[in-house]
Amino acid sequence: MHAPADLADLAADLLARIRVRTPRVHCITNSVAQQYTANMLLAAGAVPSMTISPDEIAAFVAGADALLVNLGTFDAERRAAIDVAVGAAKAGRKPWVLDPVFVDRAPQRAQFARDLLAHGPAVVRLNGAELGALSGSDPSGDAPVRLARGHATVMALTGGADHVTDGTRRATIANGDPLMARVTAMGCAGSALVAAALVVEPDAFIAASAALTAFGVAGEVAAEDATGPGSFASAIIDALYGLAGATLRRHAKVS
Amino acid sequence: MHAPADLADLAADLLARIRVRTPRVHCITNSVAQQYTANMLLAAGAVPSMTISPDEIAAFVAGADALLVNLGTFDAERRAAIDVAVGAAKAGRKPWVLDPVFVDRAPQRAQFARDLLAHGPAVVRLNGAELGALSGSDPSGDAPVRLARGHATVMALTGGADHVTDGTRRATIANGDPLMARVTAMGCAGSALVAAALVVEPDAFIAASAALTAFGVAGEVAAEDATGPGSFASAIIDALYGLAGATLRRHAKVS
Amino acid sequence: MHAPADLADLAADLLARIRVRTPRVHCITNSVAQQYTANMLLAAGAVPSMTISPDEIAAFVAGADALLVNLGTFDAERRAAIDVAVGAAKAGRKPWVLDPVFVDRAPQRAQFARDLLAHGPAVVRLNGAELGALSGSDPSGDAPVRLARGHATVMALTGGADHVTDGTRRATIANGDPLMARVTAMGCAGSALVAAALVVEPDAFIAASAALTAFGVAGEVAAEDATGPGSFASAIIDALYGLAGATLRRHAKVS
Repeated sequence: MHAPADLADLAADLLARIRVRTPRVHCITNSVAQQYTANMLLAAGAVPSMTISPDEIAAFVAGADALLVNLGTFDAERRAAIDVAVGAAKAGRKPWVLDPVFVDRAPQRAQFARDLLAHGPAVVRLNGAELGALSGSDPSGDAPVRLARGHATVMALTGGADHVTDGTRRATIANGDPLMARVTAMGCAGSALVAAALVVEPDAFIAASAALTAFGVAGEVAAEDATGPGSFASAIIDALYGLAGATLRRHAKVS
Repeated sequence: MHAPADLADLAADLLARIRVRTPRVHCITNSVAQQYTANMLLAAGAVPSMTISPDEIAAFVAGADALLVNLGTFDAERRAAIDVAVGAAKAGRKPWVLDPVFVDRAPQRAQFARDLLAHGPAVVRLNGAELGALSGSDPSGDAPVRLARGHATVMALTGGADHVTDGTRRATIANGDPLMARVTAMGCAGSALVAAALVVEPDAFIAASAALTAFGVAGEVAAEDATGPGSFASAIIDALYGLAGATLRRHAKVS
Repeated sequence: MHAPADLADLAADLLARIRVRTPRVHCITNSVAQQYTANMLLAAGAVPSMTISPDEIAAFVAGADALLVNLGTFDAERRAAIDVAVGAAKAGRKPWVLDPVFVDRAPQRAQFARDLLAHGPAVVRLNGAELGALSGSDPSGDAPVRLARGHATVMALTGGADHVTDGTRRATIANGDPLMARVTAMGCAGSALVAAALVVEPDAFIAASAALTAFGVAGEVAAEDATGPGSFASAIIDALYGLAGATLRRHAKVS
């Protein structure tokens, strides 16, 4: 199956619903990414919270509408917080997104991420190197489909183009700009946007595809006037804040 | 009593004194807010420090002129650091500001914040939801006055308009811009500015009112050219950096 | 000996090599500085990583090309991470930079920094107050030369002008802008750039001098259009990203 022909319209609708619903997204993420992730969520109309204290994370997840789990700094306290938070999300039937950052750089991260897959993330957002570490060697090139089917999740592989699949449907989103790779936490911020999307769109494949379409188009709009990664980092927040249907339809390159 | 008629002039004078005095402000705040808070203090002319290590926080507070206590990520180590820091501030007769962030989201935060009130913060800066959690149900609508009198402090309630009271005097500051709510740590940065103000202005009611007037006017100036929350976040820092009396007098809406 | 006459050309060449080589720089730094440091490295073409978890820091340093050690928040866990990371850097013969931040504010930091000097940092980047704390009273005014010789390292003292010495050669770089002191983590970001430079330039004196020349010129370019420290913080990232030989030659004030 191909991507929905109307992914630009779905993205516009998604943003409108986020702005009305103002979903609360609790984020377990690393300290490098916290500020930028929070600002991206606020720009979209969502309300972030960020504590990882084991004393209170269950209360924050219980009060939130969705959860983002970024492996971030990987230590015993963080792992414990993730376990509690994922348990609270499952208990409250709240969608959560797994961002297995840097699983390609430290082996224990990959094992932990594989274990987390068994706990039912709605979406896994990752890059190519992280996919390789998560899936092991898979010469077929179809690791995302296999992982999506095996874990009943949506795999969202981002890079030059983004590829989203739930194991049956597939979308390719050829939006974005190379400057997105020159700003730290850009991928994490995209994952957070997917988490916000899941609150207003129960079909996780549509939520992830539409959110990444909006994010990629915001990147293209931002790149038009940016003079480098510093101004770009601000401009993509502005672009997402004001992103409207006409711009999405003009820019979206989905298939 | 009403607000000082000349709050715009007081704000201009306050900024001038901060720029000359370059007060050191030690901030206990969460990792989401640290960078933005530090940059706002630097823009105002103050010098931030941020460590929360229990091994050295007493030395840093002893070398600082004021202290900001933001509940931030709430864990045992943080609570211990706050206890040590508040003790050091009291011992050194240095003013400190309490920012009871998210006390509405986790009950143990509210209790901890109530305990801290007994240790004499010069100013408590919070939003409406946090006030509700801190004061319990208070149908009179006059919780700030009651809290200010009961704890001999200044309550600074920020939101669409800011309300400051020491239990007797009151100021309402109708400045600011809705984009201020779309940038993470904006409230924390405002609290830090109040802490810097307390170093150069011993009347905590004047210090808080004047600092929040300057902050709100900086927000209005920033909003004039910003195209969204990304550019706004930078622009308010620039606006505070260059904020002068004429602009304050033209914009201030205080009563 | 004087600075290389062609430091502007060396800086242009250094930036070109970083952009091609995309060195991995692992940074142990404080949470205030992490995001800005990462974005400065990305703008230069390097690839940052930031974990301080003792469980995995050795793996990250082993996979990196250089290491930055910023004393940052100073606690037992951090000290342990630094010990492991420096050991891994030495084992892998990878250059590392020491940034002894705030050693003038807490005595145990100064002692720890002195101990680290014995482990062979390629470069020590610090400001005047930190130099005073590290070197003790040295009325000769030549503490950098003494420290550089005594520890076989390069001392890079930054401030109004930057002074770099390996104990024999000396460079003075009179570039930069006062706004650089109004953005938190600017010094840390400069130290990170020096770490990236060490990957492509084995002569640590040239690497540090050329990197700080590029950094100072980027600051001057950024200041041309900035309206305050907020816009400046983004603009210097943009300036470094696009910095070319002609601009370096036009701006460089080295001796």
